[in-house]
Amino acid sequence: MAETTAPTASAPAVDDGLIALVQERNRKAIARAMAVAESTAPGARQFVAAVHRLAGHAHTIGITGVPGSGKSTMVRALGQRFRATGRTVGIVAIDPSSPFSGGAILGDRIRMNELSGDPGVFIRSMATRGALGGLARSTLDVVDVLDAARFDVVLIETVGVGQDEVDVVQAAHTVLVVSAPGLGDEVQAIKAGVLEIADIHVVSKCDKPDARQTVADLKAMLRLGGIGRGDTTWSVEVLPTSAQNRDGIDALVDAIDRHRAHLAASGELEARQRKIMEMRIVKTAEDIVRDELGGRRRDALHAVLSQAVAKDTDPYTAARGLLREIATGL
Amino acid sequence: MAETTAPTASAPAVDDGLIALVQERNRKAIARAMAVAESTAPGARQFVAAVHRLAGHAHTIGITGVPGSGKSTMVRALGQRFRATGRTVGIVAIDPSSPFSGGAILGDRIRMNELSGDPGVFIRSMATRGALGGLARSTLDVVDVLDAARFDVVLIETVGVGQDEVDVVQAAHTVLVVSAPGLGDEVQAIKAGVLEIADIHVVSKCDKPDARQTVADLKAMLRLGGIGRGDTTWSVEVLPTSAQNRDGIDALVDAIDRHRAHLAASGELEARQRKIMEMRIVKTAEDIVRDELGGRRRDALHAVLSQAVAKDTDPYTAARGLLREIATGL
Repeated sequence: MAETTAPTASAPAVDDGLIALVQERNRKAIARAMAVAESTAPGARQFVAAVHRLAGHAHTIGITGVPGSGKSTMVRALGQRFRATGRTVGIVAIDPSSPFSGGAILGDRIRMNELSGDPGVFIRSMATRGALGGLARSTLDVVDVLDAARFDVVLIETVGVGQDEVDVVQAAHTVLVVSAPGLGDEVQAIKAGVLEIADIHVVSKCDKPDARQTVADLKAMLRLGGIGRGDTTWSVEVLPTSAQNRDGIDALVDAIDRHRAHLAASGELEARQRKIMEMRIVKTAEDIVRDELGGRRRDALHAVLSQAVAKDTDPYTAARGLLREIATGL
Repeated sequence: MAETTAPTASAPAVDDGLIALVQERNRKAIARAMAVAESTAPGARQFVAAVHRLAGHAHTIGITGVPGSGKSTMVRALGQRFRATGRTVGIVAIDPSSPFSGGAILGDRIRMNELSGDPGVFIRSMATRGALGGLARSTLDVVDVLDAARFDVVLIETVGVGQDEVDVVQAAHTVLVVSAPGLGDEVQAIKAGVLEIADIHVVSKCDKPDARQTVADLKAMLRLGGIGRGDTTWSVEVLPTSAQNRDGIDALVDAIDRHRAHLAASGELEARQRKIMEMRIVKTAEDIVRDELGGRRRDALHAVLSQAVAKDTDPYTAARGLLREIATGL
């Protein structure tokens, strides 16, 4: 089943039993824990910290690609394949959506019909805009909830544009970048920035005639070097697939499993976990600042705002003063 | 002329004469001031604060739309039309680009041939990823440089995806959202989130047969209500254009000028400036935190990182402790 909840300022009550229910993979408890993770209510961060201590078992897989590349279809096919191998699957889909309505647009409508109703699958849509906290921080907290609920694999799907979206994808253990043949030039160009974060390149829609060229182009680019996440012991693969026909999906799951084994064997897993944690701490610090300025320090912000608009101060001096105020209350 | 510079950690020297040269619209000084604005070097923020005090005269216009909507062509046509009315034009183009190379991809290659060489025009490409500071903060600082250099109009162009990109566009006085007929469904869907921030809807490529439907759809959406930036005294327009044929560009400039006059007459300009300043202060505070954790507080971050990876602490507790340390040195 797919649950989508707009983030709310008032968190659901956090009772002591919630985490225990999450660990039993109780669906209502998972949804409630996610709402807490996305909220800025008192106690929410402490709850997330407790969830974090229970996480760390799931293999996280980031999936990105430009609009039209066929990410959603790929995620559905991957989810089904992982289920067929006996693994439970959490899916977090980051949707471009309204800053006002906060609603997810693409998510559940298009996706996942075949997967819904399976108790071994949990799907969550995240709104990219209008989120009270930062996208990267709240997404990773939601991933922790799925991890603590003992889902074996967590798929994180996002459009590969925007700094926060790229950060989220890079925070996964294994990164798939999906490319499709025959998209327009301008659409392809926005992809260029994310090609280099791939552990595995997936070419979708390989029933199309120009797919062979896309595969060849990616392989040529890999030979030229200069792309990769700095892990020189893993050789990035290019896998042709057709999610519609289920072609290449088994090979993709095999490649993901090989990458997972490689991470564990090479010591790269620890290096990556350190990098991910560094990003999380920095994002969390930024989030605390934003939350405080929107909450407890709102009056202080408004006072200095009037001065800044009147040019009696500047944004930099104002920000420094506010940071000092925030720190006194932490 | 178009200048593109990757952000550098070491800022160019900030001498006292730089701001004076910027105000004389000296091109080398402008480029140097922008490099300072994008850097995290000591003195950079103080320089930006000084520039900010000189800014506040330009009319800023945010232009967004999905890949393939024809934003770049529109920006070029608008730039030419503003020049024809005797106004000087600054252009800041936010490019999806590599987190590693830091280079701009789309920018200068496709754009602006007709405008280069005109001393009344200055074009700057910003990299969306790999920026040392946050995109929103550094873009608005670069806009301030153009403003202090007395460009009458500053156009800010960005792909309408990603939280930071949307924030930047919303920080303009007038927001144009460009829609094109006949793009794919998934591409159109990512646009949905930005439709509501438009002061003026521009439909591009109106030489195409299905453009009339796009115009009708937008008008229907406006009639249904629920979109707009909260300014109920301005009625959002839908303007058909064909930048290739220069059709509708005069009408678009007229609409922008009407919106500008409306902002001044209605008091909405002040409300908007307050909102923009609030966003800038919050973004600047986040940036200071990120800069400190990447610089002076790097050792403290690394120490707590090891504890967090070992689960002796959690990201939230770690971040709070680091914020307290940062504040003591501000």
